[in-house]
Amino acid sequence: MGFSFKKTAILGVGLLGASFALAIRENGICSNIAGFGRRKENLEEAKERGIIDSFSLDPAQAVKGADLVVLSTPVGCFKEISSQIKKNLAGGSIQIDLGSVKGNLVYELEKILPRYVACHPIAGGERPGIADARGNLFKGMKCIIAKTPSTDEEAFKKISSLWERLGSRVELMDPMEHDRIFALVSHLPHLAAYALVNTVGDVDPELMKLAGAGLKDTTRIAASSPELWRDVSILNGDNLVSYLEMFIKNLEKIASALREKDGNALERLLSRAQKLRKTLEN
Amino acid sequence: MGFSFKKTAILGVGLLGASFALAIRENGICSNIAGFGRRKENLEEAKERGIIDSFSLDPAQAVKGADLVVLSTPVGCFKEISSQIKKNLAGGSIQIDLGSVKGNLVYELEKILPRYVACHPIAGGERPGIADARGNLFKGMKCIIAKTPSTDEEAFKKISSLWERLGSRVELMDPMEHDRIFALVSHLPHLAAYALVNTVGDVDPELMKLAGAGLKDTTRIAASSPELWRDVSILNGDNLVSYLEMFIKNLEKIASALREKDGNALERLLSRAQKLRKTLEN
Repeated sequence: MGFSFKKTAILGVGLLGASFALAIRENGICSNIAGFGRRKENLEEAKERGIIDSFSLDPAQAVKGADLVVLSTPVGCFKEISSQIKKNLAGGSIQIDLGSVKGNLVYELEKILPRYVACHPIAGGERPGIADARGNLFKGMKCIIAKTPSTDEEAFKKISSLWERLGSRVELMDPMEHDRIFALVSHLPHLAAYALVNTVGDVDPELMKLAGAGLKDTTRIAASSPELWRDVSILNGDNLVSYLEMFIKNLEKIASALREKDGNALERLLSRAQKLRKTLEN
Repeated sequence: MGFSFKKTAILGVGLLGASFALAIRENGICSNIAGFGRRKENLEEAKERGIIDSFSLDPAQAVKGADLVVLSTPVGCFKEISSQIKKNLAGGSIQIDLGSVKGNLVYELEKILPRYVACHPIAGGERPGIADARGNLFKGMKCIIAKTPSTDEEAFKKISSLWERLGSRVELMDPMEHDRIFALVSHLPHLAAYALVNTVGDVDPELMKLAGAGLKDTTRIAASSPELWRDVSILNGDNLVSYLEMFIKNLEKIASALREKDGNALERLLSRAQKLRKTLEN
């Protein structure tokens, strides 16, 4: 407790970046927050709403004098932005990210950034902009830190403590293991939801209006940012391709039971899923 | 308004059947309700809770003297039960069902039952039993009536009016068209959810515990009754197989973009889905 940062640079002021800004401000961790982004209107709105105090359209400008730098653009931009800001990073400053992909990217960013701590707060929402940003977004949520042998111990401790002050529970995970797990429990469901909506679109987009609770639930995350999920999916592509293949196999098993009108085989497939799904509360 | 039934037989006392019983009782449409089911304990519980007034383990007994008969077992049993009750149906009685499949089944049931009106109330929940039954389940919801040239006009008018008294909006639909549409907007999402859970199970069932809001939403309906969805899927198998094939093609397009690391192609696929999903409110 007690530590604070003099200046934080939020590189990418969307739902996560803006919520992080609000959270550290509300928790007395930093009161001088600079934003970087591509769209000036968005940065102006973030400033008006008191999310950031200043902004620049150049990430290297935004990080000047910052002792905490936060990568919160779509993950596909992390490497390029890291290279751009490197020359202007203040000595001793800590760099973190809020991205959903870890894996090799962590090792690559470690080569560029001097004191990088890889973070994945398990929080978000399907609406990508700052409209839904709130300072308590991370409260009660998990934050995974993908620590490596190269992670600076002092920086790691400070960032762990920061997440705890925001109300998150910190969990350590190997970067590669992280990507295998999240490909399955997060990235695959997103791709499944997008593909399901496109199937409705293939038949007749107008039928989407007839969606009941079932179709709404299964496709809610298909309203998420295509840019964000493009980057996550491409970076975690190897894991995702093999899980997509397994998912297709499971769909083909169902289709095959239907073609053979084999009710027993179908019920076994559905029961297996029902039992596992019922282990979750809702 | 004003009409009532002397006795209603609910054949299948689950979430829908029990809710229908409560709804007609609460709305003054019928106060003498008999139940049929396979499990005596469930029928006893339904009687204790005031959902039904009497019960029998023989559907032909349950329908004796009933002027309204409601098929609310899994749809796969409708034909057999209809044949069993036929001999005991009271003259002038009306038979309806609450099933999610119409199509050919409607024409087959019309051959067995003298005054059948095919209904599909768009209401339900993923927990199949009577625990969640409530008299206002149909309020504000749509009820589709799959009318055919053989539907008795007087029975149709009475049943339409009954649904309106329960607070439902009645919509007419051709039985075949009904099944094409609901295969896409309801049955396919269920099978997708079951297959997605089985994919997690294939990798490691323990990982289900790490599910965030995304996986929970996309798989919530996989907690639904395997028996119910087995019957619906087998009966609507032809439509479902072709939609499953289209869904698999959409997943393969995504997998192919990932294999080629083609971010632009992937973003186009995701954006197309996002635009269509955003036409829904939540």
